[in-house]
Amino acid sequence: MDESPAATYHAALAFLPTGWQQDVIFDVAANGDFTSVRSGAAPGSAIRLHGPVLPGMPNVHSHAFQRAFAGRAERRSAGARDSFWTWRETMYAVAERLDPEQFEAIATGVYLEMLRAGYTSVGEFHYMHRDPNGAWYARHSELAQRVLGAAQRTGIALTLLPVLYTYAGFGARAPDRRQHRFILSTDEYLGLWDELASLFAGVDDVRLGTAPHSLRAVAPAQLAAVVAHVRSCDARAPIHIHVAEQEREVADSLAGLGARPVRWLLANAAVDERWCLVHATHLDDAEVASLAASGAIAGLCPTTEANLGDGLFPLQAYLAQGGRLGIGSDSQVTVDVREELRWLEYGQRLATQRRIIACDDSIASVGEYLYRTSTTGGTLGLDRNAGELAPGKRADFVVLDGEALAGGAEDTPTLLDRYLFATSRPAVRDVVVGGRWVIREGHHRAEEAIELAYRHTLRELF
Amino acid sequence: MDESPAATYHAALAFLPTGWQQDVIFDVAANGDFTSVRSGAAPGSAIRLHGPVLPGMPNVHSHAFQRAFAGRAERRSAGARDSFWTWRETMYAVAERLDPEQFEAIATGVYLEMLRAGYTSVGEFHYMHRDPNGAWYARHSELAQRVLGAAQRTGIALTLLPVLYTYAGFGARAPDRRQHRFILSTDEYLGLWDELASLFAGVDDVRLGTAPHSLRAVAPAQLAAVVAHVRSCDARAPIHIHVAEQEREVADSLAGLGARPVRWLLANAAVDERWCLVHATHLDDAEVASLAASGAIAGLCPTTEANLGDGLFPLQAYLAQGGRLGIGSDSQVTVDVREELRWLEYGQRLATQRRIIACDDSIASVGEYLYRTSTTGGTLGLDRNAGELAPGKRADFVVLDGEALAGGAEDTPTLLDRYLFATSRPAVRDVVVGGRWVIREGHHRAEEAIELAYRHTLRELF
Repeated sequence: MDESPAATYHAALAFLPTGWQQDVIFDVAANGDFTSVRSGAAPGSAIRLHGPVLPGMPNVHSHAFQRAFAGRAERRSAGARDSFWTWRETMYAVAERLDPEQFEAIATGVYLEMLRAGYTSVGEFHYMHRDPNGAWYARHSELAQRVLGAAQRTGIALTLLPVLYTYAGFGARAPDRRQHRFILSTDEYLGLWDELASLFAGVDDVRLGTAPHSLRAVAPAQLAAVVAHVRSCDARAPIHIHVAEQEREVADSLAGLGARPVRWLLANAAVDERWCLVHATHLDDAEVASLAASGAIAGLCPTTEANLGDGLFPLQAYLAQGGRLGIGSDSQVTVDVREELRWLEYGQRLATQRRIIACDDSIASVGEYLYRTSTTGGTLGLDRNAGELAPGKRADFVVLDGEALAGGAEDTPTLLDRYLFATSRPAVRDVVVGGRWVIREGHHRAEEAIELAYRHTLRELF
Repeated sequence: MDESPAATYHAALAFLPTGWQQDVIFDVAANGDFTSVRSGAAPGSAIRLHGPVLPGMPNVHSHAFQRAFAGRAERRSAGARDSFWTWRETMYAVAERLDPEQFEAIATGVYLEMLRAGYTSVGEFHYMHRDPNGAWYARHSELAQRVLGAAQRTGIALTLLPVLYTYAGFGARAPDRRQHRFILSTDEYLGLWDELASLFAGVDDVRLGTAPHSLRAVAPAQLAAVVAHVRSCDARAPIHIHVAEQEREVADSLAGLGARPVRWLLANAAVDERWCLVHATHLDDAEVASLAASGAIAGLCPTTEANLGDGLFPLQAYLAQGGRLGIGSDSQVTVDVREELRWLEYGQRLATQRRIIACDDSIASVGEYLYRTSTTGGTLGLDRNAGELAPGKRADFVVLDGEALAGGAEDTPTLLDRYLFATSRPAVRDVVVGGRWVIREGHHRAEEAIELAYRHTLRELF
């Protein structure tokens, strides 16, 4: 449907694997990959990119439909000890009544927001499978296909992570009625997964992984069965799981499985670089070391984890031991690459009363270190061949508006620090995914229709 | 130079002292005050305001020139234990070479950013008095007049807080050369203050207070002399002081004054509602109670305090005891009302692992509670007769872009929560200060010239 993305681009400044380089020429092939990236080159007839160029950011953890109630659970409910668990009640109230059109309209709206914020790929942790009565849709993959529709309409690259959610809590606690849109048996899940695998085969910029929801919602045998099946079909498929988000979950895991949840997982699930442990907030020192050594990524969601009062991930110790990470917008209360990375660092500063946490001997700038770490870790977590401006990688990139940066595009050693920490205006000018332009000068070609449907849907819901 | 601000406005929605009201008519007099505010009224021939109307936000703590190096101290310096004290070195390096034109260009640029973010007044904690050689300018008030120029050019209301800074540390430690633009004797300070008092007399939307820098930079006798002089001239003048920002300061105060700094101040300085204690981060329980009872406001700067690794103010206990507060953008690393208030709340959630901290029996919404508290507390701290949309107050207000709010302008019980916690796009449409329009549909009438001069100045500096 689109013209070929084959093109040659020139950028005055680009953030390459070797750091900031000047006068960079990018060749993009018809398949949407970079074929060459070279610096110090004259622009010639290349298409000019009008600002500093960055790799696009992967969003490793998204529940798209939760954008519908963003900002609607920030109040005291009568009599409640407000916590994560009351937020979850708000989520259920919305989840109970969304129809497929509403679900897709919200997902499309929030994916557009993600692109404008500089995210180029999203890991959709997709747990709503059934209709409001708890029955299958005529197509079992109806809502998963709505996610796909939202991604394709906006142009964001998708790693779909269909969720297995079987129980309400440790020890196979029976789900309540409000969870019945989410609940599948292992067999139902594997059937759905196979259907999606056929559907996604050969589609560009789409990837299928799996997401056993958490140790509280999936029993050990189910986890093993799902991982074995998915790995037998696709050895590289990403495996995402929520873990250790709340202290209550740690206590329940100790009671139910006899171990802290991350320790249990590392001991029992052959966790490797295909895995993304989402949140992993509550870790003891041994878990920090084991997780860092596993090759898995931690899927950190700083704005959601702050909003929900989860606590702070032990970032400093984890990075010092070579741990990998990606960032996610999760509940969508904030959809902003800068705020996730800024507060990932700030949380550590507040906890330690020191400045300049995320850096190492080779990268002195916190902005460069965090941006590099979360683009390379995040693309690993989504199994997308991207995350760097380099030959053979997908052409996923973002062009910043240099004039919007605090202090302009000059002074490259501080450019990413100024972008992430100090820029007041939205500074993403253009966004390209797999060589295709999805945001141009701040605008998406379908934005009016997408925003109209999104607003209309929210008015129906509230 | 301007036409009279006398006008009648109509808003479909406005946040009054009684909460959200519909169909509100505002009458603004020629002097820029509201003369009447009534709800449930037909628009008639009133000028329509095209979005929900809020009181403008006071910014109680600003060092305007620090915007020049925002985002330029987020990197490891060779061999340094990175902390507040190395950030301060970066500040000195810039402060050493700014000339008056550069100083004014940066202040004007950041005041424009403040207006766009929804701030309508600013407390400028102004400590740069001398030229780069440490000599007086021909006019002693040269740089203070540059602050005034920046405020008047942009239209933000100004409370100037000229700073007395005499020592480098407790026990009258001698200043080093890098501080010589800031240093005044008490007599020099009082002379400058009197000059400013004459200059500011009768000027609209400008107020003069005083700012003994901190207990580490001002001796007890100097503090007493300055407060006595200023109060004898103007009993209502605001008095601002940095206090207890870092644990090192608490330790130094214990060693130098024999008491923790907030305790010393409350015991020795007749602190009352004219005072703003800036930061006040490190408080014991007794200090929390005494500060809340004093009537003073705490000047909280959450994004700067996070950037500098200061620590977390004990918000929950302070509010529970009736404590008052205002917010400040301080170092200007972030200039965003929403981020200050959001992370004021989030910091507490992370520390306590609970949600929904800032609210009370009469205001269930965190957004409404924080917005109300910081507008009323902040105007008290700046001694500006504003902070509420009510007769007799200055007409300082902000019109939001309803379409930019997550979920639109409907559902008023969650409107401020969605604005503060969940809105991705800048949502400030119009800004009015003392009845005069300063931002209209996102634009300021002098924005091109202001931004050009700002960018030009940064290029000169870096």
